[in-house]
Amino acid sequence: MHADDAGSGSERDPLTYQAAGVDLAAADRLVERLKNLTAGAGRSEVLAGLGGFAGMFRLPAGLRRPVLLAAADGVGTKLQLARRLGRPDVAGRDLVAMNVNDLLVYGGEPWFFLDYVAVGKLDESEVADLVGGMAAACREAGCALLGGETAELPGMLRCDDLELAGFAVGGVEEDRLIDGRRVSPGDAVIGLAAAGLHSNGYSLVRSALGIKGEGWSDDEKLHRHDPVLGMTLGEALLQPTRLYVAPVLEACRHFDIRAMAHITGGGLPDNLPRTLPGGVRARLDSSAWPEPPIFDVVRRAGRVGEDEMRRAFNLGIGFTMVAAAGAAAALCAAIGPRVGGAWVIGEIEAAETGRSPAVIWR
Amino acid sequence: MHADDAGSGSERDPLTYQAAGVDLAAADRLVERLKNLTAGAGRSEVLAGLGGFAGMFRLPAGLRRPVLLAAADGVGTKLQLARRLGRPDVAGRDLVAMNVNDLLVYGGEPWFFLDYVAVGKLDESEVADLVGGMAAACREAGCALLGGETAELPGMLRCDDLELAGFAVGGVEEDRLIDGRRVSPGDAVIGLAAAGLHSNGYSLVRSALGIKGEGWSDDEKLHRHDPVLGMTLGEALLQPTRLYVAPVLEACRHFDIRAMAHITGGGLPDNLPRTLPGGVRARLDSSAWPEPPIFDVVRRAGRVGEDEMRRAFNLGIGFTMVAAAGAAAALCAAIGPRVGGAWVIGEIEAAETGRSPAVIWR
Repeated sequence: MHADDAGSGSERDPLTYQAAGVDLAAADRLVERLKNLTAGAGRSEVLAGLGGFAGMFRLPAGLRRPVLLAAADGVGTKLQLARRLGRPDVAGRDLVAMNVNDLLVYGGEPWFFLDYVAVGKLDESEVADLVGGMAAACREAGCALLGGETAELPGMLRCDDLELAGFAVGGVEEDRLIDGRRVSPGDAVIGLAAAGLHSNGYSLVRSALGIKGEGWSDDEKLHRHDPVLGMTLGEALLQPTRLYVAPVLEACRHFDIRAMAHITGGGLPDNLPRTLPGGVRARLDSSAWPEPPIFDVVRRAGRVGEDEMRRAFNLGIGFTMVAAAGAAAALCAAIGPRVGGAWVIGEIEAAETGRSPAVIWR
Repeated sequence: MHADDAGSGSERDPLTYQAAGVDLAAADRLVERLKNLTAGAGRSEVLAGLGGFAGMFRLPAGLRRPVLLAAADGVGTKLQLARRLGRPDVAGRDLVAMNVNDLLVYGGEPWFFLDYVAVGKLDESEVADLVGGMAAACREAGCALLGGETAELPGMLRCDDLELAGFAVGGVEEDRLIDGRRVSPGDAVIGLAAAGLHSNGYSLVRSALGIKGEGWSDDEKLHRHDPVLGMTLGEALLQPTRLYVAPVLEACRHFDIRAMAHITGGGLPDNLPRTLPGGVRARLDSSAWPEPPIFDVVRRAGRVGEDEMRRAFNLGIGFTMVAAAGAAAALCAAIGPRVGGAWVIGEIEAAETGRSPAVIWR
């Protein structure tokens, strides 16, 4: 009997939770499987993880005045594409990256990560792949995969629906918190290479490229090798979001970094100013870095205007750092090789606080 | 132009993010609205909340060896019912309660909460109501609403779809962590009254009561006054999950509490043992507390077996505490009036570790 068949009469079989679409035994099996998958994605501070009511994490040693940082994020409609192409692990990896890169903006070291997965009907194998991607990214970012929730929501979600949210917590010494207050005119803006679209703008991408997201009519388009991209369109769209944690934390130990930004929805114009103080703006030179070819594929296909492109996409810069101009070359040389490239993409200049745009282009 | 209309041809208007179904300006307006809504749900430790890349929270003062506790949870298909009945605020409140009650199990004080809301098409007013419910619950639980993410996912979610996940972080002194290790035979199990179904078992409820969840054919059923329930069925199903934080933390300061459990999916049989040590089991007396009438309405309508009822529902006990038998009466007298009732519902007895059920019924 399916949930849909159930009326409120009395002439049917006794109702069970499983018949109503929720399989608690399958959920228990999944928890055991995830425990094994995530065993390596721990830290010495973890006291208890998956299976309890809450994850437990001992405060890392040696902090005098710790500030906790917390972020919540999803991966947007890239999830749909990743599932479609049989790569839920990429969505898992991106989910971690979107969250830990947000903490990193303030100089925060990610400590632990939790996920929330909701499905219409539990596919143990797909959820295991998804969480496997999260576990790999957590290991790379040095944070523990501390727990999460997998909910089966029949009736509310369609059978093959899957929703995903992630949460990351980290910390930083209060006097090492990077909050932009020391940014001043003349400072350099350094851009770190994105690995591709990362995890924003996919609704626009799908519209521009005419990817319907249902049925298999998109297959030919996604699986054809594209000489401009050097790979298939599907592969280009599924490049995982870069994890900047290790190289950026390392750079923060050796350089005087004054502000950072994670370039997500809203692009450089909306994200870069979020950590700048009043009285300054950034002047950026869009010719200062190589734009990955996927962006022009989208631009041309959708005849998307340049302002729109800049607000919807990272255009090849996934993370920015502001430092004294004199340190910029050494910083780029140190971090560039670890993140696919780093360039001085602009400079900070004095501006009236208020109505003028906080990012201008030359 | 709608996202669905977009092909990959070149004879159409230039594509914008808004035309692709994502309205960044509406999202900005919403953030401003939420900032106002949540202004009162803060704590002195909050350094920065909504609008930044991550929320910032200074570690509470006076902790020597803090253990951080973190939980992620949703509200299941109760969300659908709450929206249907025009009460998204109840879903928001429940989202907070489901998470902070989980931290509380270990004696943890909730410090901050973050939410993730995904919609097909942003309804600012509904999201504001939802977050308003979260803010009220956060105030009651004494935790800060530190931030969150509202994502518009056209194409992936249907227009009126709304998904919801929550995430809470709290802490406890390591030597005050309540982990069940001191539980021993002879201890009493105290049950705290649930306010109703709380936030579990709604798929079974809908099946049993024949609530289709689509269209308006359920209206008559949900809105009719029921003399047994003393309210309408809709009102009974939407009773908010009880927040146990303040009374339980208070009780922990005055009584030697040895284990606690939040009774969610899996009911007493699955949740109570999660914090019991090996070598003991709980013997419960189901006649020791009054079962709220909503459960029998579901039981009869679905002809649901008793084992199934006990695993799908809390049956009127939303939270349990284990304490020495000699302290049980005083504990019940102290906490009962603050949580709608507290009863000695069973006792801990010696048992072989292993295969036997960890909860038995007399």
